[in-house]
Amino acid sequence: MSREPRVVQVRQNVLKQNDIVARAMREEFRRSGVFAVSLVSSPGAGKTTLLEKTLAGLQGAWRVAALVGDLATENDAIRLARTGAPVKQIVTGTVCHLDAMMVRRALEDWDLAALDFLFIENVGNLVCPAAYDLGEELRLVLLSVTEGEDKPLKYPPIFHGADLVLITKTDLAEAAGFDREAARKHLEAVAPGIAVLEVSAKTGAGMDEWLEILRARAASARL
Amino acid sequence: MSREPRVVQVRQNVLKQNDIVARAMREEFRRSGVFAVSLVSSPGAGKTTLLEKTLAGLQGAWRVAALVGDLATENDAIRLARTGAPVKQIVTGTVCHLDAMMVRRALEDWDLAALDFLFIENVGNLVCPAAYDLGEELRLVLLSVTEGEDKPLKYPPIFHGADLVLITKTDLAEAAGFDREAARKHLEAVAPGIAVLEVSAKTGAGMDEWLEILRARAASARL
Repeated sequence: MSREPRVVQVRQNVLKQNDIVARAMREEFRRSGVFAVSLVSSPGAGKTTLLEKTLAGLQGAWRVAALVGDLATENDAIRLARTGAPVKQIVTGTVCHLDAMMVRRALEDWDLAALDFLFIENVGNLVCPAAYDLGEELRLVLLSVTEGEDKPLKYPPIFHGADLVLITKTDLAEAAGFDREAARKHLEAVAPGIAVLEVSAKTGAGMDEWLEILRARAASARL
Repeated sequence: MSREPRVVQVRQNVLKQNDIVARAMREEFRRSGVFAVSLVSSPGAGKTTLLEKTLAGLQGAWRVAALVGDLATENDAIRLARTGAPVKQIVTGTVCHLDAMMVRRALEDWDLAALDFLFIENVGNLVCPAAYDLGEELRLVLLSVTEGEDKPLKYPPIFHGADLVLITKTDLAEAAGFDREAARKHLEAVAPGIAVLEVSAKTGAGMDEWLEILRARAASARL
């Protein structure tokens, strides 16, 4: 494994560059009054459906936009654009996460001052996005009830780095035999004090509370 | 992004080293009469539960063993060891996939000639494992009915590299509104001709067929 130190060195340089760009973007988001939220989860935990309902729920009162990352296809952007919000797809090819440079590039021709909320949906992955700051104010990690209550213990960095955890697809909780207590205990073990909210984008359960948290956090960030 | 070419170069060297080790392991598996199967999927698609039932189903008639990869915890190894099969956990830390060197190291003190089947459960990830040959004879990709039928289109390399796709958790298909035709169409689009089987490790549906496929493929590999 003689090559490992060199790989680690290169990775550290990439991360350092990422953090410089992310920090500058965070400043710019604040200056422009945009509240930036990133969404991270396993593939299929319901990021896009949540985002669809979130954009629809905020629109009218707020100016919202979204960036969505995927290895391939523009499907999520097409789906989200139906809400009427500006949406852009970032196609990563074989890259397993978004980085700050990809986000900056995607935002180049957008006027941030014309936005209140910017949502950044990462590639579905519980590992790689953990190390990459995207300049977001709120990092949301989704855990669906069908994935198993042990996931926080098995993927600790991503849950440790979350600002808020949404337990999704609660409409399937009973059918999946979801153990709520175990999930909460495991989240608390890797991210002590983490805020956790249960939602079902399908039935709407918990969605009002989620939108209220968003509005409150955005308001307090703007103070 | 002046550093990108160097990153790509280093990554290619790592992959080359991986492939050399994987090729040597594949030779050794064949010489020893071990049929090696790797399991890849999103976090929570049911790899460990499938493996639990698979080890139990083969044991007695066959000598089986398993390696399981996770960022953290020995939970899966403890769970699988209850089947009585030899099991070893590979803890990857922050690494998002297994590589051939990790597998070789884990196998160092095992006598391959004393095994008929070796299962290698990768880290839950639909992106990173795609590029890493582990010397397996059969690469199994799991797609659970709760993840959405669009996943093959959004994560094409992993499905393209599969030898067999198991659609898992079919007991939840109705509750999740799973669209079987769409899933099959999307799999066929990225992996034309791919073998697909539907199973529920919970109810046992499809499990006999899965074990029969394993036995048949192992027998034909030994010819």
